[in-house]
Amino acid sequence: MPAKVYLDAPPDGDFRAMPARGSGLALLKWVTSFPRNPEHGLPVVSGALLLSSAETGELLAVLDGASVTSLRTGAAAAVSAQVLARGDATSVGVIGCGENGSWAARCLVAAGYGPGVCADLDEARAAGLADELGWEVGSRELAAGQDVVVTVTPGERPVLLVADVRDGQHVAVFGADAAGKSEVEAAALPRFSVFCDEWSQASGGGELAGPVGRGELSREQVTQLGDVLIGAAAGRSSDDEATLFDSTGLAIQDLGIAAAVYEAWRAGEVPATEVPL
Amino acid sequence: MPAKVYLDAPPDGDFRAMPARGSGLALLKWVTSFPRNPEHGLPVVSGALLLSSAETGELLAVLDGASVTSLRTGAAAAVSAQVLARGDATSVGVIGCGENGSWAARCLVAAGYGPGVCADLDEARAAGLADELGWEVGSRELAAGQDVVVTVTPGERPVLLVADVRDGQHVAVFGADAAGKSEVEAAALPRFSVFCDEWSQASGGGELAGPVGRGELSREQVTQLGDVLIGAAAGRSSDDEATLFDSTGLAIQDLGIAAAVYEAWRAGEVPATEVPL
Repeated sequence: MPAKVYLDAPPDGDFRAMPARGSGLALLKWVTSFPRNPEHGLPVVSGALLLSSAETGELLAVLDGASVTSLRTGAAAAVSAQVLARGDATSVGVIGCGENGSWAARCLVAAGYGPGVCADLDEARAAGLADELGWEVGSRELAAGQDVVVTVTPGERPVLLVADVRDGQHVAVFGADAAGKSEVEAAALPRFSVFCDEWSQASGGGELAGPVGRGELSREQVTQLGDVLIGAAAGRSSDDEATLFDSTGLAIQDLGIAAAVYEAWRAGEVPATEVPL
Repeated sequence: MPAKVYLDAPPDGDFRAMPARGSGLALLKWVTSFPRNPEHGLPVVSGALLLSSAETGELLAVLDGASVTSLRTGAAAAVSAQVLARGDATSVGVIGCGENGSWAARCLVAAGYGPGVCADLDEARAAGLADELGWEVGSRELAAGQDVVVTVTPGERPVLLVADVRDGQHVAVFGADAAGKSEVEAAALPRFSVFCDEWSQASGGGELAGPVGRGELSREQVTQLGDVLIGAAAGRSSDDEATLFDSTGLAIQDLGIAAAVYEAWRAGEVPATEVPL
């Protein structure tokens, strides 16, 4: 998985090209971030994934980028909870109930978590998600007090404050996707054992970029979730510990979803349009 | 146009992700090189292009990668001749009559050049192209003696030797796409005024990589074709001069072709399959 490449598209957005290879497949994700798009009724995130055979280069499928991105983002939230949350954790708080926040909630439900609290500045959006899942609408503070907390906001101001942190809690943060953005109050970070998906990407442009840049956080203080998954590093060390997972999004996660979709299509389980070349 | 990103796919090939932006559009090309694929009846080059609006990120079209690559490679040959060949140049020699060599010949015909000589180790392949264009089949030496010469071979051994070079000739070389590959005999290079499409790419992995690495060629001795096109640098300085153009392939060239295809589709001039999302 080479590093993702950014293509700026001023004044409103950018494109990211994310390649990855594994399991005999090669993937290229081409995905946007146009934060002001909703003002014009358009999605922030769109694009497509090209899935090829890594053995012959043959193009196998073109997949919608937004749906794969939502699924892998949601799956990352659920996997982080399965690996890092306390065994008795059940309740969920979702702060930011947009597309990716909603999919995080849905994937947490699929992993057995819930019910939970939906918080959003747009109360109708929080209510829509709460209705769908049989959860409740609540304040940011209420959501921040649950066993498992997911934040998926624009990262322009902190939504998880030092006063919110509870012993034993697991927090997964998704919103800060560029230097200068942050969802966690700086003073709250020392309360957590900190995990990320991939150090170079997370320290360069995610939630951790600010603390790392200010010298408040170093490589040795952060564990990659994948290292815990393969048994190369420890996860939670006690029930009192609060854990924080910074998700920046990896192309290998997209590859995992794309491979599953492709297998499901081959098994006749999902429809596709066949295009003559 | 950020630098292209390589994704290795050992043992047989690699993928390249090539982003570019211009004219309100953003392009991502995902293209392969699997040199041994023809042994299995598969193409060396395949893939797709994703064309998006640079203003909203919206995905506009998915285009076949092989055909766009062939067209832009052929167009680069023709444009280099229009800019650098002598005004009275007419005859063409094509050394290597595979997919991209054939399209170079077709684009040179479209630009008013020809007739010419087709040379290939596979004589049937040379004959097929010669028949199509009303040209003749000839030896490598005969092809190398024409007014405009295009080489599109694997680059594993020189196909343009010092004895071939003629005053006033224009040569465009396309085959050497990685360090260690070369189509021009080292002793022949000093006979030419040297041009390339983009210096950093050409000096890093094209025909020029070897001479640059050996200190035989420096940045000041090479002119980018685009600089000639916009009037920022001089092209041919006399009718006696021999010119050499090293083409490594730029994503902005693909963007030019993709934009033209998209406009033609909007004008109802080319068919497309519309896919529901």
